[in-house]
Amino acid sequence: MSINEANKNCLQRIQESTALWSDIRPAKEVIPGMSERTVLHAGPPVAWENMCGPMRGSITGACIYEGWARTPEEVAELATSGELEFDSSHHRHAIGPMSGIITPSMEVNVVTNTVHGIETYSTLYMGIGKVLRHGAFDDEVLAKLRWMNDDLAPLLKASLLRAGGIDLKSLVAQAVQMGDELHNRNKASNALLLTSLVQHLIAVGDKAAVIEAIDFIDKAGHFILNAVMAGSKGMLDAGSNVKDSTIVTALARNGYETGIRVSGLGDTWFT
Amino acid sequence: MSINEANKNCLQRIQESTALWSDIRPAKEVIPGMSERTVLHAGPPVAWENMCGPMRGSITGACIYEGWARTPEEVAELATSGELEFDSSHHRHAIGPMSGIITPSMEVNVVTNTVHGIETYSTLYMGIGKVLRHGAFDDEVLAKLRWMNDDLAPLLKASLLRAGGIDLKSLVAQAVQMGDELHNRNKASNALLLTSLVQHLIAVGDKAAVIEAIDFIDKAGHFILNAVMAGSKGMLDAGSNVKDSTIVTALARNGYETGIRVSGLGDTWFT
Repeated sequence: MSINEANKNCLQRIQESTALWSDIRPAKEVIPGMSERTVLHAGPPVAWENMCGPMRGSITGACIYEGWARTPEEVAELATSGELEFDSSHHRHAIGPMSGIITPSMEVNVVTNTVHGIETYSTLYMGIGKVLRHGAFDDEVLAKLRWMNDDLAPLLKASLLRAGGIDLKSLVAQAVQMGDELHNRNKASNALLLTSLVQHLIAVGDKAAVIEAIDFIDKAGHFILNAVMAGSKGMLDAGSNVKDSTIVTALARNGYETGIRVSGLGDTWFT
Repeated sequence: MSINEANKNCLQRIQESTALWSDIRPAKEVIPGMSERTVLHAGPPVAWENMCGPMRGSITGACIYEGWARTPEEVAELATSGELEFDSSHHRHAIGPMSGIITPSMEVNVVTNTVHGIETYSTLYMGIGKVLRHGAFDDEVLAKLRWMNDDLAPLLKASLLRAGGIDLKSLVAQAVQMGDELHNRNKASNALLLTSLVQHLIAVGDKAAVIEAIDFIDKAGHFILNAVMAGSKGMLDAGSNVKDSTIVTALARNGYETGIRVSGLGDTWFT
């Protein structure tokens, strides 16, 4: 096949893709090969030795959250002991913003590319400021993480199931026409998301919990971002591994180096 | 004062104005000079004899809704009897879309121009299709009107009071940057409105009533339109009656003729 034909084929697979935010489930139940000590991170593979401060901070928070360690020192020891299985989230159909740390008990967005039967995963968006993805791991951050996993996630999950999922592709297509660039401006997408979800939230949740959830989503400002990342990955993954295609299907960094993957060159990272 | 200076003064009064959607109240309690048989309509003054079909249809619905008549024939008789006091809503700080009919027991949006201490009023937006403002008045339309006045209005009122009002000027300023023109496209403004109101709706209402209200507002698509009309009128009214100003502060039609008002020429209509 010529490169042009291969690229057309690749593009068609990407463009015909869908992104349905269909569920929220624990990482260990849905992410492939998630062992009891797997730690997924953003970008191409990187060893603990080369990880930047914020990524180490995120891992510290995640390990304490999981109950694997109690202090940053214990985490550092654990991380160099070989007991943790570090891997790029890209190798597990998963993705996350900034350090992108995902550990087994975290609740993750499940996004389905219904055309190609691909499921992708991402953690829930935690808000701005002092949050895990930026490397923060104090008690306040861990308490927020617990609330998100224990309270927010079940409510959102029930709402998503009642709604039959949220069509992220349609929502994003509208939002980009409404001034969002879907990274640092999500004013339209967040408002459209709330408008779509709110009846279902009210139907399945207690009044106080629903108000708390809506207040959090509204103030977080970019809540839809992580789900959209998973959706985008699911669409680009549909275009990966097309023989002879030169289209870049992944562009990601881990704080140490940046890597790309090229469709026709399989799962190899070029960093 | 020169015309230029007068116009600058007029514009400043308009531009410094605010539009706070502060309350919902029965027309007879807030609209000035609302007698027990007042019927306000859109545009400059017009007599029943000259009113177009849709405006007569709206008045028919309103009279049946008020209990003043039972049939279109009885309404026609009443309308020509001199018992009804017809007036332009513009003479009473009020405004409405299409035929713009307002009768005493209808619940109206109260919008406050806090800078100039002006309160303006408009009916609640009823949705698209077969609705009162287009002249429809069958049982379905009247039942919807009853639901809006008896169920939706108290819920919205309580939510607005709990929210401390909705800043329509800020909301509209955002929405026009998000692709809305605020007449036939209100996608952004409606989503922003729901995002602002929903926590208050949930806090003050019963679950089923809140879901019904949100579903109605969402599907109506342009729910904010009438409140924005009142807000715009309140801002333009602040610019009216500025001596020597040539700025048009009202442009409205009643289905028979179109009229304008010019700031420096007081309340006179030029049709």
